[in-house]
Amino acid sequence: MSDRATAQSPPALTRWEQRAEGPLFVASLLFLLGYATRVLAPHHAEPWRGLSLVLVGVTWLLFVIDYAIRIRLSGLGHRFVRVHWLDTLVLILPLLRPLRVVKVYTAVQKRRDKPRLSLYARVMSYAGMTSLLLGFSAALAIYHLEHNAPGASIRTFGDAVWWACATLTTVGYGDVVPVTPVGRIVAAGLMACGLALLGAVTGSFSSWLIQTFRREDEKVPPAGG
Amino acid sequence: MSDRATAQSPPALTRWEQRAEGPLFVASLLFLLGYATRVLAPHHAEPWRGLSLVLVGVTWLLFVIDYAIRIRLSGLGHRFVRVHWLDTLVLILPLLRPLRVVKVYTAVQKRRDKPRLSLYARVMSYAGMTSLLLGFSAALAIYHLEHNAPGASIRTFGDAVWWACATLTTVGYGDVVPVTPVGRIVAAGLMACGLALLGAVTGSFSSWLIQTFRREDEKVPPAGG
Amino acid sequence: MSDRATAQSPPALTRWEQRAEGPLFVASLLFLLGYATRVLAPHHAEPWRGLSLVLVGVTWLLFVIDYAIRIRLSGLGHRFVRVHWLDTLVLILPLLRPLRVVKVYTAVQKRRDKPRLSLYARVMSYAGMTSLLLGFSAALAIYHLEHNAPGASIRTFGDAVWWACATLTTVGYGDVVPVTPVGRIVAAGLMACGLALLGAVTGSFSSWLIQTFRREDEKVPPAGG
Amino acid sequence: MSDRATAQSPPALTRWEQRAEGPLFVASLLFLLGYATRVLAPHHAEPWRGLSLVLVGVTWLLFVIDYAIRIRLSGLGHRFVRVHWLDTLVLILPLLRPLRVVKVYTAVQKRRDKPRLSLYARVMSYAGMTSLLLGFSAALAIYHLEHNAPGASIRTFGDAVWWACATLTTVGYGDVVPVTPVGRIVAAGLMACGLALLGAVTGSFSSWLIQTFRREDEKVPPAGG
Repeated sequence: MSDRATAQSPPALTRWEQRAEGPLFVASLLFLLGYATRVLAPHHAEPWRGLSLVLVGVTWLLFVIDYAIRIRLSGLGHRFVRVHWLDTLVLILPLLRPLRVVKVYTAVQKRRDKPRLSLYARVMSYAGMTSLLLGFSAALAIYHLEHNAPGASIRTFGDAVWWACATLTTVGYGDVVPVTPVGRIVAAGLMACGLALLGAVTGSFSSWLIQTFRREDEKVPPAGG
Repeated sequence: MSDRATAQSPPALTRWEQRAEGPLFVASLLFLLGYATRVLAPHHAEPWRGLSLVLVGVTWLLFVIDYAIRIRLSGLGHRFVRVHWLDTLVLILPLLRPLRVVKVYTAVQKRRDKPRLSLYARVMSYAGMTSLLLGFSAALAIYHLEHNAPGASIRTFGDAVWWACATLTTVGYGDVVPVTPVGRIVAAGLMACGLALLGAVTGSFSSWLIQTFRREDEKVPPAGG
Repeated sequence: MSDRATAQSPPALTRWEQRAEGPLFVASLLFLLGYATRVLAPHHAEPWRGLSLVLVGVTWLLFVIDYAIRIRLSGLGHRFVRVHWLDTLVLILPLLRPLRVVKVYTAVQKRRDKPRLSLYARVMSYAGMTSLLLGFSAALAIYHLEHNAPGASIRTFGDAVWWACATLTTVGYGDVVPVTPVGRIVAAGLMACGLALLGAVTGSFSSWLIQTFRREDEKVPPAGG
Repeated sequence: MSDRATAQSPPALTRWEQRAEGPLFVASLLFLLGYATRVLAPHHAEPWRGLSLVLVGVTWLLFVIDYAIRIRLSGLGHRFVRVHWLDTLVLILPLLRPLRVVKVYTAVQKRRDKPRLSLYARVMSYAGMTSLLLGFSAALAIYHLEHNAPGASIRTFGDAVWWACATLTTVGYGDVVPVTPVGRIVAAGLMACGLALLGAVTGSFSSWLIQTFRREDEKVPPAGG
């Protein structure tokens, strides 16, 4: 949806974005790793908990720097916050960074001569990968928010992952559910994003399957049966 | 579905509809605000409860007046009730008004030179916005109907919103569910409308994603990799 | 899927089918009415229970006669059972009759000059109507099978309808669920049929919405904004 | 997705695959039968339990031999494991074999002159059949893993099948759910595969229905109403 805005962006910004996307993606994986260590490490595992805090802080700083550079290069000033609302959201909630994977994907793609996978396979792999990363982020956040809440049913990280699976696929058993208000807001976000992404996976798979079967049809007749 | 009927409607009716849609949309938001205040305000918050009742009454009156004017202008007489059944339904159950957002959207669109968003983005934003308003209305109605029922699991407005999220996305955890007959009828309505609307969001997102990836394909080759 | 078979069917059979579909549809509604009365009437409401049994018996007999006539006219002999497997299934389980609504619809359509509704609206109304009838049939069957079972959560017909809504829309709260083996088989059937039908409703609605928005696009430019 | 790889495969490999697919499919059904007997037979039913173990072992050996032959014929060496990752996965987890049904289907198709079913009907039957086999495999595995676990809600094979139905259709009542970690991993796999496959069934059915209604449109006008 920020397509149009990108089309108008000055070349310096485009160059920066192409160069920075790779490192930023690595940074966002490191952020996730740091957050995961912070959330999952036991309270007395001090060296790791300190390190993870540093990792989270440093990577977040990188995101802020990138955002500042892009405001400067875009020449949009204050309007940048509103025009690139997805980037702004992702700066405030770095756990949503996986949503920007599509840009990394495109950047990687541009360096190759031709796409390795068919259109539907690429949509499936993009949407599937994003779902996976988002689901993992949500499981971390939910575990963080819920596991000490009174009356919580999500008590272990395994429960949180199981809950994320059941939510992303809209199965929703309801054996483990978030009970805190913030946990429920995170869950609602996961439902909304996840539903759209998984719909994309399902739709692409369906289209791919129909295409495969149609191609078989075309192959058979010339072979004379 | 009332497409054909609109095509045959006299110009006076079309003009009225174009002029009235904006104010009526504002009125429907005020209705929702009034109803929300009525439902959510504590029983002793008297000045607000009285005001909200007035707001609900006045906006409803506006809807009735608009309906009467449109019957007159259409020249259909009694048949109007049946031909424009969606309008009739929306008059009786003003909480369903958000379903008519598409008309407002079109009216707003006509005043601009060209659409600001691509086709799929518009379908997504329309269906998403309608889902949001419908979900909020349903949460209000369910809270109203359920929170004092014996054996109810929906006790706070937060529970009702959480239930509406889980229902609209068809996750359906079942940790909070309506138990009264009227509450269940409202819930069934939300399931039916919400499912179709969210299917539209999902389908458009999927199409948009495929389109985006396809466009990337076309951009890459001329650039010579 | 019995399309090809129909294409080869002798003219006498086609004529019979066109003439019989209307009355058979009425008969299937009467069957449903009889079954509903049988299931829902209290045990001591003797005159009604007897009448409903007669109604069920007579309408079933009509289905058998129609099936026999069609075997005769088709000239397929024993193969008819296999080729027209849907008809055979529907003879044995008359509650599935709604699935054949599409034929009635086509028959009715043929008598008119042109379809009253657009393509997507027709698919939606067909699939929606079939879902409704199937859901009602399933609710009746489930209530019949479950309401006296030990440990049942479906105790009233209202519960059964509520369960059918939650199942057809794949929300699946799980507050009321079938517990008997036969009830679960009926439920699995409803899930399978319902999912496909509701997918058709959702898909058509999504396509219809995209089409509507696209048409608006085309209308706007010639008007010069 | 292994389409491209297949396109480059040497003729000897293609010939082998065409010849072996039929027998391997029979072997995978026998494997399933053996596994089912092993899981479902009571502990003291010794002759059957021994036989089923032999059946599982022999069929698995066949899969290994086929895999080895295909590595040899492909001339890919170590890369075969990565390029044909689906085949590798299916060798390690033979319960996923049904996923390869599409190849069998294509092989069978090639021997006929023309397809017996329309495109959408074939996609539906393929995806439906695969869902059925996968669901049955998952029910067996879940029953195996869960029925003796402490606090398990899946206690009988009937429960496991009921759970598989509710999961594949994303209804997810949550009355019976896996509680062991391995059981939950199997369940997550079923959700992912099943969702995509059932999406294909739904999508194809929707397309087929729209196509059928469109065809009726085209038939009606020339008949002059």
